[in-house]
Amino acid sequence: MATIKDVSQLANVSISTVSRVINDTAQVAPEKREAVLKAMEELSYRPNSFAQALVSKRSDCIGLVVGDLGGGPFFMQMMKGIEEVVDGANKYTMVMTGHHEADKERHAIDILLQRQCDALIVHAMAMTDDELCEIASGDTPFVFINRLVPGFEDRCVFIDNQEGARVAVAYLIEQGHSNIAMISSDDLDFVDAIEREKGYRQALEEAGIVFDPSLIFRAFPNELGGSFAGQHLLEQRPDVTAAFGFNDSMIAGALSTFRDFKVSSPEQIAVVGFDDNHYAKFTFPRLTTIRYPIEEMGGRAAQQALDLFALKNTDESVSTDGLCFKPELIKRESA
Amino acid sequence: MATIKDVSQLANVSISTVSRVINDTAQVAPEKREAVLKAMEELSYRPNSFAQALVSKRSDCIGLVVGDLGGGPFFMQMMKGIEEVVDGANKYTMVMTGHHEADKERHAIDILLQRQCDALIVHAMAMTDDELCEIASGDTPFVFINRLVPGFEDRCVFIDNQEGARVAVAYLIEQGHSNIAMISSDDLDFVDAIEREKGYRQALEEAGIVFDPSLIFRAFPNELGGSFAGQHLLEQRPDVTAAFGFNDSMIAGALSTFRDFKVSSPEQIAVVGFDDNHYAKFTFPRLTTIRYPIEEMGGRAAQQALDLFALKNTDESVSTDGLCFKPELIKRESA
Repeated sequence: MATIKDVSQLANVSISTVSRVINDTAQVAPEKREAVLKAMEELSYRPNSFAQALVSKRSDCIGLVVGDLGGGPFFMQMMKGIEEVVDGANKYTMVMTGHHEADKERHAIDILLQRQCDALIVHAMAMTDDELCEIASGDTPFVFINRLVPGFEDRCVFIDNQEGARVAVAYLIEQGHSNIAMISSDDLDFVDAIEREKGYRQALEEAGIVFDPSLIFRAFPNELGGSFAGQHLLEQRPDVTAAFGFNDSMIAGALSTFRDFKVSSPEQIAVVGFDDNHYAKFTFPRLTTIRYPIEEMGGRAAQQALDLFALKNTDESVSTDGLCFKPELIKRESA
Repeated sequence: MATIKDVSQLANVSISTVSRVINDTAQVAPEKREAVLKAMEELSYRPNSFAQALVSKRSDCIGLVVGDLGGGPFFMQMMKGIEEVVDGANKYTMVMTGHHEADKERHAIDILLQRQCDALIVHAMAMTDDELCEIASGDTPFVFINRLVPGFEDRCVFIDNQEGARVAVAYLIEQGHSNIAMISSDDLDFVDAIEREKGYRQALEEAGIVFDPSLIFRAFPNELGGSFAGQHLLEQRPDVTAAFGFNDSMIAGALSTFRDFKVSSPEQIAVVGFDDNHYAKFTFPRLTTIRYPIEEMGGRAAQQALDLFALKNTDESVSTDGLCFKPELIKRESA
């Protein structure tokens, strides 16, 4: 592999001239600059970006830690929102995954820090608040998404999951339902599932309906899981007239099972989903759901990360407007 | 920020001992090792992974270039397949995007190379074959996905899009249809759209049906685009009895429009999609579609990347089994 020395010899300039061309740090005579670029191309010389980053103190990369890359629409839409803002700032997004396991979250963060990202956007579910506080106190700005880390409220973009679930179930109660099932996630390490179940129970409680644990049907939180949960629901609790879902994917799966069993929705079972995912308004029936504006939240997190980096080492502080998002009921056909 | 020198002073060992502990390259006395690790923790010392990578010649990161992060199920499912294999090998996936633009594809590849990825998996649509050949001739192994780069057949994982489309349309013709529309993508930079349109025309030609360009309805290749294209189809060509879709998302959107117009599927318009995406078997009606096994293709690409890296600088060559995938017709309810 060619070195900076090879480039300087071929271009017949000093190493520091080559370095100045690479890092664009000082004026270089046009003909020297030309010679360096030509030599670099001839030798297929690849500048060491790590060294460059150390010099310029910026890599133009925003590091992103997500739960997984291909698990479903949630991270897909979050990444969409982030990428649009980062692209718009002429920077680059570098993504790694934490798999909702503390070791892997920590490792992904370490790798991105070592690679000199300008700032990090982190969706971490397993690491403790203490650990996140510690790591976020370093030199590289952190933004947390879908989590409120105490002491770092100015860099947390989040939504009240419990309130969203409460609103969904209260709406079903308003429509006259009292036997309301919940089609929930079996991944209780993911705090969203716990918070949405809390919201379900809160709405029941506020309406004076006794919580019945046998009305919670848990499965893997995707379409297939929802289709299984829907079948268990029909087999075990034919008295149910409405269901609230952990997410739209599970509800889409449940609806396909209901059709197989000739159970119509919303007539025989009204359903409300969660997320308002990319196909929620194209299902049959179109989903009534809680809008989780994860794309906007991703965009807001990206803007905060860019701002924190830009204002680093200045006296200015970043705006904290619009970091807390509100879940919103979207009424369509399914309830 | 702490340096390796700070660590060596606090641990009271030489810098090279610290280096040996970090890189795990040689036996170090247990008590010295312990002292170094303790000092590193105390100082929050972060070893320079780039230097480590230079020493060990491996970073345990597989670089991945995709078209976009949040555009739809295609890259999501591809990333899922890749990530499972890379995780299984105890390595890490680092993702960047190329946006189907040559400049951005090139830049993403450069950044990942500079960061010393062990191997790269690249979904590049805009860069030329020549350029990809040149860049893939370097030291870092490349695998191309969804593309056949001449001279690099042993590192290309691909599928015959034209044949998939031909099979889909031939099936509709077999079912007695002759007025067959295509709901296609308006992104003709993406070669998949061109190949699928070719397959549509080939099937018509083979059946002696004259191609009618006004039967192609192009829109953005997602659910919303499909719903618009579906409306144009109904308004402009009420004689159509079947439609082939660029992808399942567009067909899901078209089906929702058909319902609004009280046009039933498959009775009034039979539809065949493409991809067999994550919700294709949960729509109403369930989609008849061409299975594009992008998750398996991602997994195969990842395995090839790992194998190429492992066999680098050896005499052994990698297996080329199973790099070419076959599109498959999945019959469900929509046609």
